[in-house]
Amino acid sequence: MTSDLLALSTLSAEAMGEPSVGRARARVNSALAVFLDGKRDSAPDACLPPLVAVLRDFIKGGKRIRPLLCHCGWLAGGGDLEAEQPVVLGAALELFHTFALVHDDIMDTSDLRRGRPTVHRARTAGFRGPGGQRAAERFGTSTAMLLGDLSLVWSDELRSVLDAENSRKRAVRELVDTMHVELIAGEYLDLLGAAEAGVDPVQRAWRVIRWKTARYTVELPLRMGAVLAGADARVLAACGAYGRPVGEAFQLRDDLLGVFGDPRATGKPDRDDLREGKQTVLMVLAWRQATSAQREIITALHGKPDLDQPESDRLREVVRDTGAVARVEELIASRTQRALSVLESAPITPQAKPGLAALALSAASRTR
Amino acid sequence: MTSDLLALSTLSAEAMGEPSVGRARARVNSALAVFLDGKRDSAPDACLPPLVAVLRDFIKGGKRIRPLLCHCGWLAGGGDLEAEQPVVLGAALELFHTFALVHDDIMDTSDLRRGRPTVHRARTAGFRGPGGQRAAERFGTSTAMLLGDLSLVWSDELRSVLDAENSRKRAVRELVDTMHVELIAGEYLDLLGAAEAGVDPVQRAWRVIRWKTARYTVELPLRMGAVLAGADARVLAACGAYGRPVGEAFQLRDDLLGVFGDPRATGKPDRDDLREGKQTVLMVLAWRQATSAQREIITALHGKPDLDQPESDRLREVVRDTGAVARVEELIASRTQRALSVLESAPITPQAKPGLAALALSAASRTR
Repeated sequence: MTSDLLALSTLSAEAMGEPSVGRARARVNSALAVFLDGKRDSAPDACLPPLVAVLRDFIKGGKRIRPLLCHCGWLAGGGDLEAEQPVVLGAALELFHTFALVHDDIMDTSDLRRGRPTVHRARTAGFRGPGGQRAAERFGTSTAMLLGDLSLVWSDELRSVLDAENSRKRAVRELVDTMHVELIAGEYLDLLGAAEAGVDPVQRAWRVIRWKTARYTVELPLRMGAVLAGADARVLAACGAYGRPVGEAFQLRDDLLGVFGDPRATGKPDRDDLREGKQTVLMVLAWRQATSAQREIITALHGKPDLDQPESDRLREVVRDTGAVARVEELIASRTQRALSVLESAPITPQAKPGLAALALSAASRTR
Repeated sequence: MTSDLLALSTLSAEAMGEPSVGRARARVNSALAVFLDGKRDSAPDACLPPLVAVLRDFIKGGKRIRPLLCHCGWLAGGGDLEAEQPVVLGAALELFHTFALVHDDIMDTSDLRRGRPTVHRARTAGFRGPGGQRAAERFGTSTAMLLGDLSLVWSDELRSVLDAENSRKRAVRELVDTMHVELIAGEYLDLLGAAEAGVDPVQRAWRVIRWKTARYTVELPLRMGAVLAGADARVLAACGAYGRPVGEAFQLRDDLLGVFGDPRATGKPDRDDLREGKQTVLMVLAWRQATSAQREIITALHGKPDLDQPESDRLREVVRDTGAVARVEELIASRTQRALSVLESAPITPQAKPGLAALALSAASRTR
């Protein structure tokens, strides 16, 4: 199964060049630029345009996976390729995602995102007032909180101008409400980590995947596009059957990239997750499959705040030796396989299928 | 003018007992309780109900000034006293305000709110995981960020169920969008503080008042209630003419309470603003009116992180001696007077007037 997938995954870079996907991305980018230009030009106070510029700059990075899935959902539900609605909704999703990332980076005290300093770090470094490092950090973190808040309220504002029938707008709205609360639940679960007593770690890791990534990144944006197009229950069921495994594969790949990825490609350090002791599916499987000698090393190094290069190399080696990496690769492959087979027989329009296949492969085999 | 106001302000406690105001408050409280019960019962993950409980508990405090102004705006625009719409909108405003306070307390690193530990402090104290004080603080702050985020998205969700004509919902929506960006601008300006070069401090302090409090607390909630009732342009103009001075008076009183208030009444320490060196209108006027000897003391003590009791008493004395307190009291009195005289001739329904008069007096003369 893994080798099948490998064969397929070499196609994914080209598949992502699928013309309708590439065009959807460009249109979402342009909608974001127009919206933010408008915000800059109509700002009620002179302090805002510089904040808008930071937001714009941050948004330039990013893979646009949620807007693209929204676009595919729209096509799957029979929506017109040239319509504006999924573009607006996709741009709103990207603003929401910006909020999520900026606040997540504060909570994770991350230094890098998309190969550059995170927003709170960059704002801390740019502080010119009195009060030393403590004042600078407070300013940087607070500014990033406000930027996240701004991105969230603007996401909502942009979505509110959607030009669609009331019933479809209501259906989108319900999914958006669900997305909000599920993502926050996922973030909170992640935060609770080991502090939540009496919970099986593997189950908890899967709950985090479900709320923090899988539904949020894949299933819900896809469904949003579909309900906006007025899709029926059979199409929506197919969106779920495709979306859940792809979402899980996306996060499992993320877990692997967080530890084994090339920082030049991921734009994130490869030691943060290890230093933080993140209880990902990868790491709880490694623990479960480890010998007692391996467990000693995991206990000593996973979550060590000042983990150095030799130590992180050692920990990676142990994780690999437990068989957890191979196991996670299998989980990714089986999920991708399942999604592709759902897709084959799904009652969705043929024009949505190439894009969805490309996105499933890209989610599973991406290197960034 | 001040003595007139003093005579009036002794009435304000009774005026706040204005039956329609008291009933509106009770109905908003009940709408909030029902909404949050629903959220607890329909939570997608078991980690959420405890968060909802924290939110509920926090919301119990608070004066409900924004929902009450929304209620008055609704009446001013000719809305029916028994209608549900302004109650729902008022409850949504209170959830938004909860977001604003919880995030503001993180940014200000405040310890107390409404006489109890702030959300981030309480969550820090409740942390039971490993990693010591640093891990506890990170957990507490992150949880409070998520709680604020939750309150914000739920505010929006609650507002979205408003049962009103599309055109009125759109008009409310525009004011909500304005409120969001203005509040964030006000918070950011406050944060920039002295870091924003080349700006007259008095002007900057007034900008903060305008965005962070005056429009947000008084004018916009009032207008929202009015547009929801379908008020015409004359009523909306009256809302602005009344709301702006009341909002300014509200914040000027807040500045005074932050330094001279009784912490048992305000629920906040009386040294935080001084320790933080907040550039309020009170403090920039004190500086402007100070002798060079007084300026030396202000420079030495205002913004001193470890300001002790004798020092803060000394600083208060100096601020009073500059005449700044008397000046701010005059500013409050003249604004309140103006609002009351606008009210007398305003083209709004008579049943809105007693509540608005009571709120104007309460905003100006409150002790908490």
